[in-house]
This record gives sequence, C-alpha cells and structure tokens, in this order.
Amino acid sequence: MAERLTLHEDPRSGNCYKIKLTAALLGRPLQTRQYDILKGETRTPDFLGDINSNGRIPVLQIGGDEAGGDGARFLPESNAACWYLAAGSHLVPADPFEQADVLRWMFFEQYQHEPNIATLRFWLRFIGESNLSDEQCMLVPGKRAAGEAALALFAYTHVAHEAGFDMGGFACLREWIERIEQTQGFTPMS
Amino acid sequence: MAERLTLHEDPRSGNCYKIKLTAALLGRPLQTRQYDILKGETRTPDFLGDINSNGRIPVLQIGGDEAGGDGARFLPESNAACWYLAAGSHLVPADPFEQADVLRWMFFEQYQHEPNIATLRFWLRFIGESNLSDEQCMLVPGKRAAGEAALALFAYTHVAHEAGFDMGGFACLREWIERIEQTQGFTPMS
Repeated sequence: MAERLTLHEDPRSGNCYKIKLTAALLGRPLQTRQYDILKGETRTPDFLGDINSNGRIPVLQIGGDEAGGDGARFLPESNAACWYLAAGSHLVPADPFEQADVLRWMFFEQYQHEPNIATLRFWLRFIGESNLSDEQCMLVPGKRAAGEAALALFAYTHVAHEAGFDMGGFACLREWIERIEQTQGFTPMS
Repeated sequence: MAERLTLHEDPRSGNCYKIKLTAALLGRPLQTRQYDILKGETRTPDFLGDINSNGRIPVLQIGGDEAGGDGARFLPESNAACWYLAAGSHLVPADPFEQADVLRWMFFEQYQHEPNIATLRFWLRFIGESNLSDEQCMLVPGKRAAGEAALALFAYTHVAHEAGFDMGGFACLREWIERIEQTQGFTPMS
C-alpha cells in the first residue's frame, strides 16, 4: 500500500472530490494533477494516449513518479477509484450483502444522482445559464425533476444549491449533511 | 450460499438480463418474478413498500420464499446484484487493482452505455418511434452520438441493433460478442 497515488482531476468536479474525501478519511496521501475540462485539457492526444482514452477525469494513477506514469496503472471512474482506496478498510463492510449494498448506492449515484445534479451544477455554476446551448436549456427541466428525486447522497447533494436546487424544505437532509461534515477526517470540497 | 434467490424483473430489460447471465455463468439457481414496467407494475404501493422504494427493477431478493419476502433482503441496482452473486467466484479477480478495474467497466456501463443504448432500445423496440414524446424525440440524436462512443460492453451492445445502431462497421465488436456467446454457461437474452 506504499505505492504513490496521483489523482488526475479538475478541482471543480465532485467525482474528483469523492476520491479526495475517501483518501482523507483513510489518511492516505494523494498527489493531484489538475486539468481544466472546459479548456479541453482531458481531450489532448497525450491525455487520451497516456491517462484515459475516454477523455475524462477523475483518473487515479497508482505508481509512477513526479515525472510521469512509467510503470503506473490508471483507474478511471470515480467510484472504482474510491473502491480501490477503501477496499479492506473500515469504509467497506466485510459482510457480502452489506458490501453489495454499498455498491448499490454507488451505482445509484452514478445513474440517477450525478447525471442530474452534477450536470446542472456544472452548467449553472461554471458555464452559466446564459451561455447554455439550446439543447442544454431543453434538458434542464427533466434533470431538475430527476435530480430532486435523487437528493439522497452526500456527493453532490451538499452542493445542490449551486445547481439551483432549493434545499430549504429538506431539514433531514441538511442535518445528515452536517453529520457527515463532522466525521473525523472529513475534508470539504474546495 | 444456499439462500433462495429471486429476481424481480422485466424480461425486456438488459439490466435484468445481466443478473440472469451472471447466475447462469455461476450455475446458481435463480427464481424470477415478472413485472411490466410499461404498465407501472413497479410503481404500485406494494412494490414501493416491499421491494424497492425507487420503483425500479431489477431487484435481487435474497431469502424469503415463494409466498413472499418475509425475512428477505432486497438489493436494487443491477451491478450491485451481479457483484453480490459473483464476489468470491472466478468472475471477480482477487487482485485489488483488477477488482477495481472490473468495477471501473461496470460504472462506465451505467454512466455512459446504458443510459444511451438501453434507453434508445427501449424507446425504439418497445415503445415505438411514432409513440415517443416530443422530449424523447429531442433526446434521440444526443443519445445516438453518446451511445456510439460507448459500444464497448456486452450488456446492451449485442442488442444495439434493436436501438437502431448500425453494427456493420464494427467487425471486432461482432467477433467479441460471438466469443462471449461461446462462453461455457452462456445464456441468451430472452
């Protein structure tokens, strides 16, 4: 477990934050290398060839050194990276059903939560409502409705107000978010 | 591992098929209980209260008996159910990186593959192009483009032609699908 860990990330991404939070909760050092996805920095030939042919961050690099990824392995998909870090720790239960139940929420997050709440947050906070394409504008109401149905995970829920969600009516959710923020080792999204 | 397994499913769903294929590859008996999602059979008070409050199939029921789910546990999310069945078997590598790499493709599938290819297949094959809503028609081109970029997993790729994808140009993909279909224990999608 002494391999050097490097997170290829855009700091605005909650998918990247999940990995940093997992590492922080486990006390594991994590180097970061930053990319601006709005400037296409994850679609360059170097990134596609060396880091992730899917052109997306986050990617967890295991091994290699400051100079690069020689001998390193690369793990895309935020929740696969979280799993790699957390497997065998107190964050992943040993009981087979409970372990699968953790994955159940992680799959729910990527299927119903992130595509709605994270996408709306990125569009509204980082692109700006007036800069959205016609297609994006058209998708907003459906993502809003689907996102409201999925406000059940910490990942993007605690920044859902940045996506224009009104959290005023969700007292239990707000209390739960506060409890998570009080966990030992918690680190906030930058 | 002798617990009774019951899959709550709609046989048209590839997400349900993945679980049946996993059980078949492992030689594990799996009972099924069928629902018609187009008739709202997974949104009834009974289903929401007893099986999955998220109103979706598949759900893997572990334990209980023919009469119902007393004492049973319920696992929604297709890939969590596959993981529950496959953990500890030859389908899941023991090496931590390889294990996370399996999950990497499973998360990719739910994020980039299924929402495009499966959704288009369901709309075109089971709802019918002429019955699509204006919003659905509007979403088709984006899902078509994103789906073509994601034709890299067996799950829905082998029925992508039912979603209007032209597979003629993907010789390697077709060969790979044939290899999977020749795996011992393989069971086709009904």
